[in-house]
Amino acid sequence: MARFLKKNDMTAGKPPGSLIFVGQQKVTEPRLRIIDYDEETLRDEIIRDVDVLAPCLTSRTTSWLNVDGLHEPEVMGRVGAAFSIPELILEDIVNTGHRPKMDEYPNLIFITLKMLSINEDRDRIISEQLSCVLTGRCLITFQEQPGDVFEPVRDRIRHQSGRLRRRGPDYLLYALLDRVFENYLKVIEIMGERIEAFDEEVLDDPSPELLEEINTYRREMAFIRRAVRPAREIALKLARTENELVAEEITPYLRDLTDMAEQTAEAVETYREMLNDHLNSYNMAVSNRLNDVMKFLTIFATIFIPLSFLAGLYGMNFDFMPELKFRYGYFVLLGGMGAVAVGMLLYFKKRKWI
Amino acid sequence: MARFLKKNDMTAGKPPGSLIFVGQQKVTEPRLRIIDYDEETLRDEIIRDVDVLAPCLTSRTTSWLNVDGLHEPEVMGRVGAAFSIPELILEDIVNTGHRPKMDEYPNLIFITLKMLSINEDRDRIISEQLSCVLTGRCLITFQEQPGDVFEPVRDRIRHQSGRLRRRGPDYLLYALLDRVFENYLKVIEIMGERIEAFDEEVLDDPSPELLEEINTYRREMAFIRRAVRPAREIALKLARTENELVAEEITPYLRDLTDMAEQTAEAVETYREMLNDHLNSYNMAVSNRLNDVMKFLTIFATIFIPLSFLAGLYGMNFDFMPELKFRYGYFVLLGGMGAVAVGMLLYFKKRKWI
Amino acid sequence: MARFLKKNDMTAGKPPGSLIFVGQQKVTEPRLRIIDYDEETLRDEIIRDVDVLAPCLTSRTTSWLNVDGLHEPEVMGRVGAAFSIPELILEDIVNTGHRPKMDEYPNLIFITLKMLSINEDRDRIISEQLSCVLTGRCLITFQEQPGDVFEPVRDRIRHQSGRLRRRGPDYLLYALLDRVFENYLKVIEIMGERIEAFDEEVLDDPSPELLEEINTYRREMAFIRRAVRPAREIALKLARTENELVAEEITPYLRDLTDMAEQTAEAVETYREMLNDHLNSYNMAVSNRLNDVMKFLTIFATIFIPLSFLAGLYGMNFDFMPELKFRYGYFVLLGGMGAVAVGMLLYFKKRKWI
Amino acid sequence: MARFLKKNDMTAGKPPGSLIFVGQQKVTEPRLRIIDYDEETLRDEIIRDVDVLAPCLTSRTTSWLNVDGLHEPEVMGRVGAAFSIPELILEDIVNTGHRPKMDEYPNLIFITLKMLSINEDRDRIISEQLSCVLTGRCLITFQEQPGDVFEPVRDRIRHQSGRLRRRGPDYLLYALLDRVFENYLKVIEIMGERIEAFDEEVLDDPSPELLEEINTYRREMAFIRRAVRPAREIALKLARTENELVAEEITPYLRDLTDMAEQTAEAVETYREMLNDHLNSYNMAVSNRLNDVMKFLTIFATIFIPLSFLAGLYGMNFDFMPELKFRYGYFVLLGGMGAVAVGMLLYFKKRKWI
Amino acid sequence: MARFLKKNDMTAGKPPGSLIFVGQQKVTEPRLRIIDYDEETLRDEIIRDVDVLAPCLTSRTTSWLNVDGLHEPEVMGRVGAAFSIPELILEDIVNTGHRPKMDEYPNLIFITLKMLSINEDRDRIISEQLSCVLTGRCLITFQEQPGDVFEPVRDRIRHQSGRLRRRGPDYLLYALLDRVFENYLKVIEIMGERIEAFDEEVLDDPSPELLEEINTYRREMAFIRRAVRPAREIALKLARTENELVAEEITPYLRDLTDMAEQTAEAVETYREMLNDHLNSYNMAVSNRLNDVMKFLTIFATIFIPLSFLAGLYGMNFDFMPELKFRYGYFVLLGGMGAVAVGMLLYFKKRKWI
Repeated sequence: MARFLKKNDMTAGKPPGSLIFVGQQKVTEPRLRIIDYDEETLRDEIIRDVDVLAPCLTSRTTSWLNVDGLHEPEVMGRVGAAFSIPELILEDIVNTGHRPKMDEYPNLIFITLKMLSINEDRDRIISEQLSCVLTGRCLITFQEQPGDVFEPVRDRIRHQSGRLRRRGPDYLLYALLDRVFENYLKVIEIMGERIEAFDEEVLDDPSPELLEEINTYRREMAFIRRAVRPAREIALKLARTENELVAEEITPYLRDLTDMAEQTAEAVETYREMLNDHLNSYNMAVSNRLNDVMKFLTIFATIFIPLSFLAGLYGMNFDFMPELKFRYGYFVLLGGMGAVAVGMLLYFKKRKWI
Repeated sequence: MARFLKKNDMTAGKPPGSLIFVGQQKVTEPRLRIIDYDEETLRDEIIRDVDVLAPCLTSRTTSWLNVDGLHEPEVMGRVGAAFSIPELILEDIVNTGHRPKMDEYPNLIFITLKMLSINEDRDRIISEQLSCVLTGRCLITFQEQPGDVFEPVRDRIRHQSGRLRRRGPDYLLYALLDRVFENYLKVIEIMGERIEAFDEEVLDDPSPELLEEINTYRREMAFIRRAVRPAREIALKLARTENELVAEEITPYLRDLTDMAEQTAEAVETYREMLNDHLNSYNMAVSNRLNDVMKFLTIFATIFIPLSFLAGLYGMNFDFMPELKFRYGYFVLLGGMGAVAVGMLLYFKKRKWI
Repeated sequence: MARFLKKNDMTAGKPPGSLIFVGQQKVTEPRLRIIDYDEETLRDEIIRDVDVLAPCLTSRTTSWLNVDGLHEPEVMGRVGAAFSIPELILEDIVNTGHRPKMDEYPNLIFITLKMLSINEDRDRIISEQLSCVLTGRCLITFQEQPGDVFEPVRDRIRHQSGRLRRRGPDYLLYALLDRVFENYLKVIEIMGERIEAFDEEVLDDPSPELLEEINTYRREMAFIRRAVRPAREIALKLARTENELVAEEITPYLRDLTDMAEQTAEAVETYREMLNDHLNSYNMAVSNRLNDVMKFLTIFATIFIPLSFLAGLYGMNFDFMPELKFRYGYFVLLGGMGAVAVGMLLYFKKRKWI
Repeated sequence: MARFLKKNDMTAGKPPGSLIFVGQQKVTEPRLRIIDYDEETLRDEIIRDVDVLAPCLTSRTTSWLNVDGLHEPEVMGRVGAAFSIPELILEDIVNTGHRPKMDEYPNLIFITLKMLSINEDRDRIISEQLSCVLTGRCLITFQEQPGDVFEPVRDRIRHQSGRLRRRGPDYLLYALLDRVFENYLKVIEIMGERIEAFDEEVLDDPSPELLEEINTYRREMAFIRRAVRPAREIALKLARTENELVAEEITPYLRDLTDMAEQTAEAVETYREMLNDHLNSYNMAVSNRLNDVMKFLTIFATIFIPLSFLAGLYGMNFDFMPELKFRYGYFVLLGGMGAVAVGMLLYFKKRKWI
Repeated sequence: MARFLKKNDMTAGKPPGSLIFVGQQKVTEPRLRIIDYDEETLRDEIIRDVDVLAPCLTSRTTSWLNVDGLHEPEVMGRVGAAFSIPELILEDIVNTGHRPKMDEYPNLIFITLKMLSINEDRDRIISEQLSCVLTGRCLITFQEQPGDVFEPVRDRIRHQSGRLRRRGPDYLLYALLDRVFENYLKVIEIMGERIEAFDEEVLDDPSPELLEEINTYRREMAFIRRAVRPAREIALKLARTENELVAEEITPYLRDLTDMAEQTAEAVETYREMLNDHLNSYNMAVSNRLNDVMKFLTIFATIFIPLSFLAGLYGMNFDFMPELKFRYGYFVLLGGMGAVAVGMLLYFKKRKWI
């Protein structure tokens, strides 16, 4: 299956707004978790049905509904209905191959982007789609499977009587995006450490395994870039939005987010260039190594050429070859051969070939 | 014939507005099909003459006239006259080598773009020109030959009492463009699966056939890109149009179309870069393979050089060569040769040449 | 002489407005031809003196004065005076190395661009400068030498009671520019057909002649590009002008011209990229071919190495070499040599080297 | 540790505004130094506590507080509180891996950028973060460790009754930034001299050490670029600011700063391109050198091939080989061999191979 | 010394406005020349002191003060004071490593750019800084050393009762800049003629000297580019200025200047690309030549391999080798060897290897 472009055969030709899940089902059953809080109260529970959310919608508390698992059209439809999410947006949420983007409506902000993690072998990026819908006092987030990347945010909600509890869902959205970008940076940093280490290895030991590793990293960097670049655009757009859903006091935080996005994108580019440099260095190192071998062997062979010729010469069967009769002809020849060899070595040395 | 730039010798020097068909005639006779519908009624028939269209033009129903085959100037002229399509536009419609573009007039929107498909061997893109004219309650589409790419849209018109039947020709235009872009994505995906698979093959078996395949894909990607990039511009322009022919309620759908166009263009770029990477990897793999062979053979030859020299040495016919008289001289020499060979192998091993 | 930058030593240090012809004189004597027309009347004659033009300047007919040959300062000066063309513009007209550009004055539009043609061997672009001055009811065009590229336009003026006769000099300017761009496309197409054909040749028969041809085409494409890119800017600028000399009804035609310019520029880029691809393919093909030869020869040589060693071995003159005494030693050795050769061939086959 | 992207594990998941130092602690204890001056008075002392700063904040004198060492959250917090620096900015100050940037608030301008220096071996750039906060009549600067780069500015404050003493903290900020950019230019110039010298070396003696040096310079140039490019943006932004903290009289100086920033960025690009050229020249020089060796050796070997063949031929043991019986056969053969060798040499000479 | 970035150690840390000359002193003593003219009067003299300029400043005549030699701070200071030139500008004038730029003040326009010339060997560009200050009725120009590039302008002032005498200092500024750009074009043209000639040479005789020449030209083109690109920006800025110092009537001339600047920049780019193409062609030609040699030699060697083997075979000393006894064995073998050689030649011919 094409990894860089997800199959969407099933949705082809369907009217827009059809909730057909695109991707691999990653959990058996969608899980809904509601965290409802203000400065004084806090409610955190797994729910079965969205009907219990009715009070959240009208109260002045901040509600965060997290949905893990997107493959049940019925559940998605009910969530969509409860929060009046337009059908086109629901369709984007379940299409996990969607390009990161941000859409603004008068009373709703929709953001979809990729959360990245790295597998245990540190050679493959795993991408999961996160969609956020900010509407009224509610923030609804959709993930493909449960994860603990937002656990620090939940901790801050639970334990702290801090800023997060005093602010609304826009600040919560910022806190979540902050985690997502922190994660980008962490993934890039893990790869970056390895990439910077290539520098030495390439010159010392340019093995085919190293080449494959460099190429793997290049491909994964291209993969990260496809997630990070539109995410940066989203951060910029969010920092400049004039939508009333985002309070003006949040702007400095969003600008901070923009800095982070900028840094992320820049780091990706830096490491991309570095990988290209490594690739060039690798090629040069391999070819230098080969050239050294070939030069050595050729010089070695060259020295024997006149010696073998001389041996062949005195192996001829002419009746009259006076040298063959000389008493010490053989030893003189051996000496002569040694002289030729040494002379050639000196000549090569002088020309700096060895 | 130049495939990337269609011949237009016949139109050269003619006044603008001359309806001269540029391309290969693909059907024997143009076929006109009218689908006329609103929420309650539906009429779908093949027509002979555009005269029967008069009622469509004035009624409040949505009319979709599809013309397959562009090579009959007379038919084109009559269609143009019936819907008051300017001559310059008709000329663009019959010139199948035209660059995709969108033109806006106060009471008419004209879009021409390419529909792409892939041949059975999956190694050549087939391009067909689609032109759409949106005017009043009518949408007129022109294709070079009949195709079934719009069949799902016709199905949705026929069987569903859905959104398509309730909306006007602008929504129909959106639905058709949606199909065109879905098709782009499908074509790219088919190629993309193959392209992503090259990754392994290039390293495992860099055959000349693979090289030719990579080059074919690069050329076809360049071909796709020439269709997709202006198509994206069209989608963006359509989403931002303030023309009254496009109702404001359609905007979210057109934005969705823009996302799709963006994704298409991005996928083309991603695969282009990937193909370039494959080309580089291929070259590297071929040259590595050759280097391995050459290194092996050179080392093999190098080991025999001193052995052959020794054999030559004792093949000489000097009268006085004491070694030749020794009882076991021959066997000592054989042992010495073995020692030289093993010593050289060990040396090469130590220098990591083998 | 530098072809990509014409010598202008003679004008250096002169005050601006000096009418010094830069280029090669291509006709013996300037030729002036006036075509004066409206819907009813038509006058077409070669004139000697610009004085006879006085009535044209004041009448309501459209006048087209074409000047072939720019090297007579006196003639140029009289034409300039008759139509009040500023000195700076006259200077640009006679400087045939000028970059294509468009200048607007309140009552005058000046355009200078290159007309391209291809020589008979189809390997060299010939460039001629065309300058157009649109002022009042007159269009004055300046060419370096007489040509028949505008003949179709004259035909349309002569034979048709068509659109051209009904419109003013702005439409005539459009018609001429249309011819110029058609010519660009034709030149590019002639080259394009050849360029697309390289594709096969490069892989089948990468001869040095082909390489030279590719390089010639690349240089000529660079030459075309230098003419076409500013010409596209001119088309865009003309389509957006608000100068009253260009009637608003002409705008759709000028937009059409813009499309054509866009297509021209795009085709140049496409073929440039294609030529670069061909160059890379050529290099790869040449190096693959060489590698094949070298691999074959090296393997051939390698097989003989141990055989020659064995022959040398039994050519030694040791007194005691038991094998030499064996009755069938020679034939056993021959068999052994055959076995070694076959074994090596099988080994190479197994490693996929042959 | 990734050098191009600093670890920020400790801050991950923390609420924004947490003052966690990111970097290596470079001094044992933060050092605070206050310089407070106007045209007549001057006070310059190391302080222990920020409480003593109260009079500075309200007086009309210009106060410059320099903080060396950022790792003590408590000190940073107190400084922040004394000057009402927002928490987000304090966080940026202690995060030494931050991207250079400028933030504007109604009553505060915050700039963070990198100061560069070069180590003694001239092969590694050392980067230190400098943060400046301009608020009211005060300028607060934060460095990771004490340095003498600002000593000339302090000198100008101390000794001169010049412009610096007459102006406010905005001019002081300009003077400091001027020093930072001068430092950039100096670092680039030191590297540039070496880089320009590579030109000759690459052609004369393309040693592996030189290659490594070129690569080191390329990596360090990339490092400098990451500091210089955002610094240029800061200079441009500062020159265009309409913030009242920056007096209009300062604008010409800031424009001067912009010129310098432009020149810096341009110099980096120039040397980057030059290094790439050197890399290419190096590769070419190495490969030319190898080719020369190989050509020489191959020609040498080729001359001996027919000679050795002839020697082998007359080493054969056929009973009837008439040449062997000729009286001077051996000498005739030697002469023939000489003739062959000379003939081949002449042939190679004629073909310009040697 | 870094040629692409001039040392400015002496100014580092100095307050802005310090008049420290950066560069090599090129004349012993600054020379001041005043040309003061209007339509009727003309005064042209070398002066010692700027005090004599007082009448020029107030009169309605146009004054052109040219200063050759910038290394005397005192002279510079007096000139600056006489014309009220701000200190920052004076500093830019004496810093001959400054990037070309244009600064506008309400009553003063400052332009600094590079004048280029080419040394006698035509392999090195010499750059000299020209600074122009336009203020009131005066134009002050500063050069590093006397030159005759402006002689034609002086001629036009002296001999002609032409346009230059009728216009003000803005037209004079235009005339000087026109000369500077003409000079750029001339330098580029001299180099261009040589560069275009490389085309043939590269294919015919790719000698190392040619490579070095190509590289020299590339470096010098990069040098030119650094002067020409900002100069183009200056021309554009000057043509668009709304400063009252530049009369509106001058605009067409400035637009002409812009065309020239555009052409200059384009020519630089064209030749840069051409040089890169030559470099690639050179590499290809060298490698083709080497490949030809190697192929020839390898084929030559290959043909002798089986022949030498046969000779070795019949040089063996087996007691029983029946062929050796045959009467014509030797001649049969010679014939066989000839057949093998011819057969191999034919085979290689068939495979198109020779």
